[in-house]
Amino acid sequence: MEFISEQRLDDGVREREFTLGEIPGILWTPPSVTAPVPLILLGHPGGLPMMYPRLVARAQHCAAEGFAAASIELPGGGNRPRFLAVEEARADLRRALQAGERVDDEIVDRLVLPLVDKAVPEWRATLDALLALPEIGGPVGYSGGIIAIGVRLAVVEPRIRAALLFAGSFVPRSMFEEARQVSIPLQVLLQWDDEGNDRQLALDLFDAFGSREKALHANMGGHTGIPHYAGEGANRFFIRHLK
Amino acid sequence: MEFISEQRLDDGVREREFTLGEIPGILWTPPSVTAPVPLILLGHPGGLPMMYPRLVARAQHCAAEGFAAASIELPGGGNRPRFLAVEEARADLRRALQAGERVDDEIVDRLVLPLVDKAVPEWRATLDALLALPEIGGPVGYSGGIIAIGVRLAVVEPRIRAALLFAGSFVPRSMFEEARQVSIPLQVLLQWDDEGNDRQLALDLFDAFGSREKALHANMGGHTGIPHYAGEGANRFFIRHLK
Repeated sequence: MEFISEQRLDDGVREREFTLGEIPGILWTPPSVTAPVPLILLGHPGGLPMMYPRLVARAQHCAAEGFAAASIELPGGGNRPRFLAVEEARADLRRALQAGERVDDEIVDRLVLPLVDKAVPEWRATLDALLALPEIGGPVGYSGGIIAIGVRLAVVEPRIRAALLFAGSFVPRSMFEEARQVSIPLQVLLQWDDEGNDRQLALDLFDAFGSREKALHANMGGHTGIPHYAGEGANRFFIRHLK
Repeated sequence: MEFISEQRLDDGVREREFTLGEIPGILWTPPSVTAPVPLILLGHPGGLPMMYPRLVARAQHCAAEGFAAASIELPGGGNRPRFLAVEEARADLRRALQAGERVDDEIVDRLVLPLVDKAVPEWRATLDALLALPEIGGPVGYSGGIIAIGVRLAVVEPRIRAALLFAGSFVPRSMFEEARQVSIPLQVLLQWDDEGNDRQLALDLFDAFGSREKALHANMGGHTGIPHYAGEGANRFFIRHLK
């Protein structure tokens, strides 16, 4: 892990860009860190430069409660080399949506599974590197989308102790079996009128999770309309489980 | 409205029992009130003496944020005269549930509609009396079950500005039309594994509400298993809308 830039944000939060091999990422830590702090991994749909304004707001929210936060670019996202198999599937998905067709399970599999298979080991390698820093102590939470990445991480990565998952993207049917294996506390956010998301599938997925503690928070509005107070709810969820 | 007893609770909250005609009720106000405070009406399934421990805990939670709270006995509940039509319907409901049968819409109508028709004017009369007290200023929120009572109150009582509804009881089909007329901010609590509640019906009812701001919070467990942090979420909801 190599730090390539450093700045202080208005509220004193320390922001450092890094690379881990070919993967670009950003680490945010609270203004002053006297003991190792818990860490929240911020998931997103890919495109770190475009997602930056929303990510930095979430990171500052985390830092205000004493959490570090970090995010990395998705395979094929932003300035990373194109991920051709996924791009083809994304084009097929777009065609199906524009034609008003039901999205075929096969397209969802081709779109999401390769991304999960590649992104999850990258998140885990990032976790190794971040937890080696003296200022980061764990425990670790995962927050955001892509939900299938959060599900796989929750199953395979024991250092992740709680996850806030955003049910705003397609989920391969095969992930339901993985969902049943999840046992950490979960909070699932659902935008009730999300235009690109199948509400019933999201409810079924919530039902499938094996976690004893899981909560579904559904709010009105479309994909990007998550109300600001849902962010406060997210912080309280992580405070309960990571502190 | 006649006050018949008064005591201070451990935390200084002032608790007064009252009667309004034949209706018994309880009013809780914060330890010291220097200006008129907002009011939260605490709904429950009937049986004030039995519900008291849970109601007083909710009231103390409200008072800690500067809200007054009040509850009245339901028609036919606790020590009030029996409500024979409703008792018959309840016996029929119990028989159907014990026999593992689908609960007939007709039974739900006979059980819930007379209760709503009688309870809602009683809540409104209570509101008149409470808002005439110098220490109660409004605005007013409604919190709890029976959900059909909350729906009707939200439609007909303009002084109620926000409602937290507990989706834990049967809802007559005819109430869906009323639900579409609700426009105040709503938070709907759903216990995902509520043994006596139809989950799909609760989701359909949530979908039907006309409110621009509505949130569904589903938690694990049965009817009485609402986690303690849902109470904190309730307070934050009312702080947003009543302060």
